[in-house]
Amino acid sequence: MPAPDKFFKYIDDNADTFIKRLAAAVAIPSVSGDGTHRKDVVAMANWLNSELKQLGVDTKLVDLGKHVMDEQELDLPPAILGKLGNDPNKKTVLIYGHYDVQPASKSDGWDTDPFTLVVDEKNGRLIGRGSTDDKGPVLGWLNVIQYHHQNNIPLPVNLICCFEGMEESGSEGLDDLVRKESKKGGYFEGTDCICISDNYWLNTRTPALTYGLRGLAYYKVTVAGPGRDLHSGTFGRTVHEPMTDLISLLGTLVTPQGDILVPGVDDMVPPPDEDEKAIYAGLDYSIADIEGAAGGQIALSSDKVAVLMGRMRYPSLSIHGIEGAFYGAGGKTVIPAKVSGKFSIRLVPPQTPDNINPLVIDHLEKAFAKLGSKNKLNIEAAHGGKPWMADHRHWNYEAAKRATKIVYNQDPDLTREGGSIPVTLTFAEALGVNVLLLPMGRGDDGAHSTNEKIDKSNFIQGSKLLGSYLYELADVSK
Amino acid sequence: MPAPDKFFKYIDDNADTFIKRLAAAVAIPSVSGDGTHRKDVVAMANWLNSELKQLGVDTKLVDLGKHVMDEQELDLPPAILGKLGNDPNKKTVLIYGHYDVQPASKSDGWDTDPFTLVVDEKNGRLIGRGSTDDKGPVLGWLNVIQYHHQNNIPLPVNLICCFEGMEESGSEGLDDLVRKESKKGGYFEGTDCICISDNYWLNTRTPALTYGLRGLAYYKVTVAGPGRDLHSGTFGRTVHEPMTDLISLLGTLVTPQGDILVPGVDDMVPPPDEDEKAIYAGLDYSIADIEGAAGGQIALSSDKVAVLMGRMRYPSLSIHGIEGAFYGAGGKTVIPAKVSGKFSIRLVPPQTPDNINPLVIDHLEKAFAKLGSKNKLNIEAAHGGKPWMADHRHWNYEAAKRATKIVYNQDPDLTREGGSIPVTLTFAEALGVNVLLLPMGRGDDGAHSTNEKIDKSNFIQGSKLLGSYLYELADVSK
Ligand SMILES: [Zn+2]
Ligand SMILES: [Zn+2]
Ligand SMILES: [Zn+2]
Ligand SMILES: [Zn+2]
Repeated sequence: MPAPDKFFKYIDDNADTFIKRLAAAVAIPSVSGDGTHRKDVVAMANWLNSELKQLGVDTKLVDLGKHVMDEQELDLPPAILGKLGNDPNKKTVLIYGHYDVQPASKSDGWDTDPFTLVVDEKNGRLIGRGSTDDKGPVLGWLNVIQYHHQNNIPLPVNLICCFEGMEESGSEGLDDLVRKESKKGGYFEGTDCICISDNYWLNTRTPALTYGLRGLAYYKVTVAGPGRDLHSGTFGRTVHEPMTDLISLLGTLVTPQGDILVPGVDDMVPPPDEDEKAIYAGLDYSIADIEGAAGGQIALSSDKVAVLMGRMRYPSLSIHGIEGAFYGAGGKTVIPAKVSGKFSIRLVPPQTPDNINPLVIDHLEKAFAKLGSKNKLNIEAAHGGKPWMADHRHWNYEAAKRATKIVYNQDPDLTREGGSIPVTLTFAEALGVNVLLLPMGRGDDGAHSTNEKIDKSNFIQGSKLLGSYLYELADVSK
Repeated sequence: MPAPDKFFKYIDDNADTFIKRLAAAVAIPSVSGDGTHRKDVVAMANWLNSELKQLGVDTKLVDLGKHVMDEQELDLPPAILGKLGNDPNKKTVLIYGHYDVQPASKSDGWDTDPFTLVVDEKNGRLIGRGSTDDKGPVLGWLNVIQYHHQNNIPLPVNLICCFEGMEESGSEGLDDLVRKESKKGGYFEGTDCICISDNYWLNTRTPALTYGLRGLAYYKVTVAGPGRDLHSGTFGRTVHEPMTDLISLLGTLVTPQGDILVPGVDDMVPPPDEDEKAIYAGLDYSIADIEGAAGGQIALSSDKVAVLMGRMRYPSLSIHGIEGAFYGAGGKTVIPAKVSGKFSIRLVPPQTPDNINPLVIDHLEKAFAKLGSKNKLNIEAAHGGKPWMADHRHWNYEAAKRATKIVYNQDPDLTREGGSIPVTLTFAEALGVNVLLLPMGRGDDGAHSTNEKIDKSNFIQGSKLLGSYLYELADVSK
């Protein structure tokens, strides 16, 4: 049975109430990356927990222990676990979201106070930090639950909630919790599928389902030689300069066209079959869209499929910067003593940090040997994560496709994201069930940026989508 | 007539007095690069002016106008001009020095308070900011004058002094003054030769005369494309990344062996003749010395002559850093929108910024065109200065060689410096007379560094050297 018309009407009729609740959530500056805001993150946990309880969800706060940030030991904000429904005849869906946000201050360039939700009636936008990442989607679930609670209607599925307050700071403490609660007898036992609403449509027009995320392998390559920074007047052309060596090394990694020059890396990825190519060809996204988002006419190709595959299904190598060299304005004539290049590779299946690291290290060592420098090389494979990909023909996706068609009257784009949401892989591996990424916001929401927004229509239609998805889940055959 | 024994004895006998005067000078923190110390720079000018007057020098303070530093308009510290002697039968020598110093604070890592001269009797060192750069040498001249003043003996030459208080901050205001006073009827009219004591011996053992300085051409090459910094997850392998392009460009400039790859730059410099090679072979400097100074076994060659020529008589290209990229610790996954590489070329005759800039710009434009990038390139030839070289067979040098032999009982190293002292060229061009660089301190004095020192023996023997030089000047035939 699809979601009843009464549900859709309820969401529309209560839009103002829902926006007020979002405003209350945005007003709590739950910035997880700033120790001085830790009390606000905890306040946000308590607020959300109380809202869930009022809507009949059976919740508990889970203490995740302590961590050190900025040389200060802090309590981690709690995870909120919740259950609604326990009918063995219904499917059980685990939903994940986060209640913490990125830092924001007016001085960063916001047009309005970031922690006051501004309803821009003219453009239909709800502007504020967390509006789209990820308070809007989390409250979308609350909107769905509220309809059922107020009308005494059971949900069509059993719901397990997992909301965390450290997502923007590496989800510290959550992996252990997920692994523990995914075991036999754990809180998540019985989960049939997972839904995470914490990403975005490809564009501003077309709903999307996301079935893949790239992984990451991050490197720090250091060249050192002199005992201290030297003056280029006194030492220029007398010693091997670490910067010269490092620039040479970094120049062996990737072409200006994006091809990765580290032997074996690009080769590891099988070419797409015709079915997969058809997905990219069908996506509602143009070169103009990507150049608009980038703010420059700099796409690597005029072929949309090539550019989208570059983002979604191929690895990429980006050079981020250099630590230890002169970086200020003006003109210092220093020969830096020790410089570290930072670069990373976005990974796609079957690549993992484990199979990519040796290729990168071997390549850099050989390239350095060719330089004939007397400086010293050090390579650190810093942090990383595996890529994730789900079967988009799974019934979990089928339910979301149907729900999208009902709410938006169009088929969703089937996307893979270039970035990573590490918890996705944690859930997928720990529970061994299908994970669906079901975005609520648009591609231009500016999640980590100034003037973050969610369109009012995305918040309201998105709430309908989440509810509708639950009904379709109940319907779809396993 | 060489300097009388009485003079040498006087310097020895008054060593403690001279060190006390140096301590008084060091105690005034005349840091020209820090606006909050401007009053101290002016206090230092007044102190030095008063010392000169007491020693019978006819001085005047010259107002050099105002300048803006750290968004604040400040009075430039005055130049001190002085004359002693006006005998048309004597040669007239212009001496230059500076009474301002580099910034210093205990927290930089000094073992003692930088503005309290510490007499380290064990190692025979006088430690304090300005001890060797350039208060020690300036006071060396005062020591010489004091002997003549107290004993009522006229100097063997006419002396013109020019002491400035902005050397460590680009000698602002001085160029105009030098050009004006070098004209007919100007204060410097009649100058036969110039002596500047503001550099260092090559090593810690052997006095040196310096007859060349490299020039500089500084570049900022900028690649820009995206409208703002991008996330490498979302945009990696979809757009031309400015960092990739910039790294490629910087990689075309110089080899790890120091050879400059910009066509035409190295070729412009004629090879040394046998006489010149003999100078380098004769220098009291080893690969171990240069590696000791650099703090690492990273010399470009095991051939001392090659390494010394690399520093002194060949151009060098150093890459200093990148502005606009990620430079912190840790691992940001940013694609920087606009990045600027900073590099500079040290120039030797006949190179000048004017004949080098077109080669660099043309090379970079061609290299960028080859990349096939849609990003935008911008090249700025930022600041620069011509190299300087003097005839080391001139009577001005001959006098200094004789004086060195008398005081130190050895022949001086004949050196060229890899860095630049821009005022040298200003004087040389404005007055058209020979300029001698006559260093007082040793190669390990740490001029701009923590624990700056001058050896007591260099201060005292150096004072003898300056006096002896004046006597030899009087003697030597033009
Ligand atoms: Zn998020
Ligand atoms: Zn986020
Ligand atoms: Zn100096
Ligand atoms: Zn200096």
